[in-house]
Order: sequence, then C-alpha cells, then structure tokens
Amino acid sequence: MTENSAPLNCLSGVRVLDLTQFEAGPSCTEALAWLGAEVVKVENPGGGEPGRTSFAGPPGSPDSFYFFEFNANKKSVTVNLKSERGLALVKDMAKKADVMIENMAPGTIERLGLGYEAIRALNPGIIYAQVKGFGEGSPYEKNLAFDMIAQAAGGTMSITGEPDGPPIRPGVSLGDTGTGMTMAISILGALYERRATGQGRRLQVAMQDAMLHYIRFAFQTQAVLGRAAPRNSNRSNTAPSGIFRCAPGGANDWIYVFARQKDHWHRLLKLLGREDLIGDPRYETAQARGERIQEVNAMVADWTKRRDKHEAMRLIGAAGVPAGAVLDTMELMNEPSFTERGILQIADHPTGPFKMPCWPVRFDGRTPKLEPAPLLGQHCAEVFGDWLGMSPGDVDALKKDGVI
Amino acid sequence: MTENSAPLNCLSGVRVLDLTQFEAGPSCTEALAWLGAEVVKVENPGGGEPGRTSFAGPPGSPDSFYFFEFNANKKSVTVNLKSERGLALVKDMAKKADVMIENMAPGTIERLGLGYEAIRALNPGIIYAQVKGFGEGSPYEKNLAFDMIAQAAGGTMSITGEPDGPPIRPGVSLGDTGTGMTMAISILGALYERRATGQGRRLQVAMQDAMLHYIRFAFQTQAVLGRAAPRNSNRSNTAPSGIFRCAPGGANDWIYVFARQKDHWHRLLKLLGREDLIGDPRYETAQARGERIQEVNAMVADWTKRRDKHEAMRLIGAAGVPAGAVLDTMELMNEPSFTERGILQIADHPTGPFKMPCWPVRFDGRTPKLEPAPLLGQHCAEVFGDWLGMSPGDVDALKKDGVI
Repeated sequence: MTENSAPLNCLSGVRVLDLTQFEAGPSCTEALAWLGAEVVKVENPGGGEPGRTSFAGPPGSPDSFYFFEFNANKKSVTVNLKSERGLALVKDMAKKADVMIENMAPGTIERLGLGYEAIRALNPGIIYAQVKGFGEGSPYEKNLAFDMIAQAAGGTMSITGEPDGPPIRPGVSLGDTGTGMTMAISILGALYERRATGQGRRLQVAMQDAMLHYIRFAFQTQAVLGRAAPRNSNRSNTAPSGIFRCAPGGANDWIYVFARQKDHWHRLLKLLGREDLIGDPRYETAQARGERIQEVNAMVADWTKRRDKHEAMRLIGAAGVPAGAVLDTMELMNEPSFTERGILQIADHPTGPFKMPCWPVRFDGRTPKLEPAPLLGQHCAEVFGDWLGMSPGDVDALKKDGVI
Repeated sequence: MTENSAPLNCLSGVRVLDLTQFEAGPSCTEALAWLGAEVVKVENPGGGEPGRTSFAGPPGSPDSFYFFEFNANKKSVTVNLKSERGLALVKDMAKKADVMIENMAPGTIERLGLGYEAIRALNPGIIYAQVKGFGEGSPYEKNLAFDMIAQAAGGTMSITGEPDGPPIRPGVSLGDTGTGMTMAISILGALYERRATGQGRRLQVAMQDAMLHYIRFAFQTQAVLGRAAPRNSNRSNTAPSGIFRCAPGGANDWIYVFARQKDHWHRLLKLLGREDLIGDPRYETAQARGERIQEVNAMVADWTKRRDKHEAMRLIGAAGVPAGAVLDTMELMNEPSFTERGILQIADHPTGPFKMPCWPVRFDGRTPKLEPAPLLGQHCAEVFGDWLGMSPGDVDALKKDGVI
C-alpha cells in the first residue's frame, strides 16, 4: 500500500532558530519544516508566542487551531528574553544555527541585543532573516502592521470588490502567508549558496512590499489602461467569464465558467445543446461575445441554474471547458480526495485529532508528512542537549532559575 | 553611492529548462531567476508562449506588459515541438539541466514524449516539476484551469465578499503566483538536497490544492465556528477594526484601522482627543467595544473623514496604532520609496523603459537586479552553444530547417 505522505529530508541537518510569531514568520519557517529543517521556536515561558492563545482552540487545549496550522513539524523551547541568561542562551543557539529569523515589532530585536550585527559577530555564516510590516527606508518603517494593514497599503484591497462598492479585504491571509513564502524562497536560495561558499546573508522583507509581487496582474492592467487597476470583481469584458448561479441557490452555489478561447466556446455550445451557434459570427470571437455579454451569460446561467454546482463542474469540466465550482471550507475539508492525496492530513494533538491543510506539493508522489505543532517548551531537553550539549540536569536548573 | 539592487548569484550554475506559460509556472521560474539561476524558456518559434501575446503591450512591442512582468531575468530559445528534431533538442537540453518544469494541459507533456519517466531515463538526477490545475488523483485531474478556476474550486472566492453578497474573486492572482511560490520553495528544497546527494525528484503541485495553503486562517475560523468560514469582508466583531472613509471620498480614499489590543486602543484615544475614555470600562476590552461597535467605529470615522488617507496613515501609524491607507496600483507605482528601495525597478526593453514590481526580499540590503524579459529566441546561439556545444553555424542550420 502506498502512503500518501512521507517524512521529507531535503533540508536534513539545517537548523532554524525561530523567533517569529503569529503568521508571516511562522508560515515561512513551517515551509522549511515541511522540507525537513529542524525549526526550533523560541518562546516566552509565560504563555508562549501569542498565536497560541489569541484565537480559540479545542476544549482543554492550551493552544489554538491557528497555532496548530502554522507550527506543524516544529520544535519548541522556552527562553525568558527578559533575563540576561536567557539572552545569552539565544546567542549560544545562534552560534549553532544556520538560519535565524524574527518578525517582532520594528526595533525590538535590536533592543534585545539580538540584531543582525550582534548575531553576525557571533556567527558570520548565519542567514539572518527579518519580516516587518513596512520596509527599511519606507516612510512607514517604524509602523506596526498586521495582515490587513499590509493588504490595504500593499494594493490588494484596492483591486478586490465590486466596481461601485468599497475596497474589500481578500479572505486570504496574503499579507502574512504570502509574505512568508517570499522569505522562505529567499532563505532557501541563501542556504543553497551557503552550502558551497559558507557565506551568510542578511534577508529583509516587508509585508507591504511583498503584496506588490502578488498583484502584478493588476500592474499590467494599469499599464494597459493608463490608470489605476480597478476593482472588477467577477466581471469581464468577454463572455462567458464569471460566476453563474447553481441549484439550489445557497450562498456558495455558484460556478466559475471561463470560455474565452474559441475551442472552449465551441465545446460549451455543444454541452448547452446549441451546436447551431458554432461558427455563427455573432458569437464566434471573444470580442463579438463581449458585445452580447448579457445574452451569452444568460445562455450559460440558464443551464447552470438547473444543476447543482458539483454536477455542473463535472459536466463542463469533462467537456473540456475551464470551470470551477465555488467550494467553501467545509466542502473542501470533507472532500475525500484531499485526504487520500495527503493535501489534508490529521495531526494527533494531546487534545485529539485535528485535520488541516498541509504542504501542497508532492515529492515523488507524496506530500511531506504532518507532525503536530509542539506544546510550549516541549523540546527544551532535546534541543538544549543536541545544540548546546546540556545535560537534563542543566536544563532543569535553568527552569528552576526562570531562565527557560 | 549604494545601489538599491544588485545581481544575485545564490543559484549560480543552476540550469532550469522552462516549458511553462502564462503565470503559475513562469512566476515560479522567475523566482529562481531572481536568485541567479539560468532559466531558459523553451518557446514555440511561431509566436512564443501565449503570455507574450494574450495581453496588450507597449506600442510596437511584440510582447505584452504581462510577459515583461513574469519573465524578467530569463533567457529564451525557440524549439518546434512538432518536429522530431525539436523534441530531440529538448531531450538533449534535459540531459544538461538541473531542473525541468512545465505547466501544460493535463497529458500534453507525456504525449510529447517528455514526461517524467522519459526524462528521468535520460537524467536520473533531474528535478522534474509540474504545475496543473487539479491534482493527480483528484476527480478533476483532467480538467483545464486558469487562475479563477483554482480560486473558485480552492476556496478563496467563498471567503471573499460581503456576507450577504455573492462570492468575489480576490484581485490577486493567487491561483497562479501563489501556486508558483509553493513550487519554487519545493524546487529549492530539492536542489539543496541534490547538492549533497545527487538525487533527483519528481515534484507536482495543483493550483486548487495550493489555494488551501493560503486560506488556513479560514480553516481555523471553521474549526472555531463549526461551520464553513463565512465571507466577512471588512467586518469584525471587535472595534475599531475595518476600513474607514477618508477625505475627499474617492473610490480608494479609505484607511484600515485595527486597534484590538488595549495599548493600541489607548494610543488611538489620545490621537482622537478622547483621553477621558482611557480606562472607561464601557470601552476598555475588545469585547466591550464589540458591544458598542457602531459607536466606536463612528468615533474613528468622524476623525478619518476629515483627513486624507495619507495624513491619516501618517498620524495613526506614528501614534503606534496599526493602520494602512488603501493604496491603488498607481499610487504604489508613483510612491518614490519603492523605487528608492529597489522594490520597483525599470527594465530597458527595446520598446522603452518599463517600471515593474521586482523580487521584494533584500539580500544584504539590496534586491536582485532586474534584467528585461527576453525577446523570443534571443538566446538560441548562446544557450545552444553553452549547453550543447553548438556552433553559430549549427544554430543557423536548425533555424533554416524550422527546428528552432
């Protein structure tokens, strides 16, 4: 029997000292953990990183569902950063790390004496990564940011919504996870280089800046139009292109159909039982259909409204026309194929199983295997032993002294 | 004088054979190109990949703005894949490549005889990457997909929009570029491993599957609520949190303000001239303010509507409260700081300069330097010479024979 997931050891031996919290940093280090790096979260002994407790979790759990999702396959140690001995401990770990990463408020890591220059002096080969809301040199470099602030100031909100409505925040947490992905790529590039050269790197990304990377399509729209890219929601100047209502008419009973190419349009006509229109110049080009947009869309809508979205997607897709039912999170969670293929996996937390989205890329047919997010301080003995050669007695003493 | 960008050589010597088109594949290989890999696009001699011509470009340009954006820092060769000699040429290149990647319609690359098994037989150490709309083993594995299809079927649309309105497609091309980033990370992990082991990998990602990675926040919402994550647009059950109108009231004259934390709320009260409410139990907790959400939001709205969004962001941000003006693409393009910091750079295309968003992460203070996207077949002599040892005469002969 073939397993759908397997431990992945691409980054075997890579040590990541992780001082990040919430999502932009943790999503980055989780990607490295999926690939097999040893990611060690450094957390406040008094409650851990705020992502553990800022959201709800299962009954009896000290940790939130949110924390589960963004910290899979990592280890956790506690260190009191208000203690001199705690700070010294982090510096000792930095000497042993390949990568150190933080996403604290601007200026905080430097005030702790753990800034880039300090750490580089201890470990010149380290890859030192920082995620902030706004870039160094930006007028807002000292400002605080969360996902929605980056999405407002980074342009994604300005292009999401109805043309005559207000800007809408996309439901995706792109300001966080989107930014984290660009940093993960950069760390991996630096690691590849370092394996050959031993050279360290200072890496910096701002959430606002990273948003521009994800709205490049809008920048080309602007280049074409000569004005800011508008919000165009689901509308298009061609047809059929957009969402169409399906039976029985619930909030997410819609299907996106896109048949701009001529061959796709012809296939769709066959499915609709309108082969008579194939070759008809009134409908033959995208431009011609754009001039009859309401009529063309009505033809499609009349067909979709009599099917449920799953049947509609099956039939339109099988006809060779791009189509996607609007699926909600529960439908995705309950679709067996995601579990069979290792895209959704179940983590065994002490408070019970939790099914969650995992790394979506398959390596030789299998996704990386999910291990549950760590309990606070779960790996103190293991990590301080492995990295720093401490005995269990040493670790206990640090605990008694309130250092960890 | 410090340059804001510089050529980056992290992936120096890495050869990427790139058979991708449009955006999901090209965004992935462009990330590798920013890091210094030699990315060679293999394109149809009769017009190149469709991203060149499917959108508008500058006057006189054979290539679209869209193509400029997703193909910076790459090389281009032409190969006629309908010719046996052309296919043999691709196989010869595959023998010399570290990475080969494609995102053709399901089954196409295999029909060309360039599928994974065929290429692995020629080059067992190759990292072979495929991007599709739906995953192998999904009920929709044979279906075609574009960005919006993945966003519908991958859940992002179901969580974007107003609670009582239809699903809205986020303005970001996450189905494409979001997927590309997960593949870039996976390729880099495999490259790191390969440098030590020489081991090749088969990598596969589906755009639908990748969307789940970007909506993990919605999956935690579902876990908390016990039902599908709703569309909640800009609304919140706390206050102040959301967008507020600014002067003079244009389409994007809004600011996002988020002051859930107690210290942020107190700072905001000072700015609003309402220190008298600091410590007032009617407003002191996020929950208390949630019960007076309209009143609290009105206090903020009354202040923001009398400022333009830039002033409002400056003042609220400087007060230590997370806030982001809703910036449109033109405002971002014209903000000097992005250019000064190398986030926006100008490419010198034959038809003139084009300013575009570049890789947002700085390496030792500088972003990777932008080189313009290649003209169709621009690097035939160079690449066929370097990779395959061909003479300029050999290359000319292939051209005359219609092979390239």
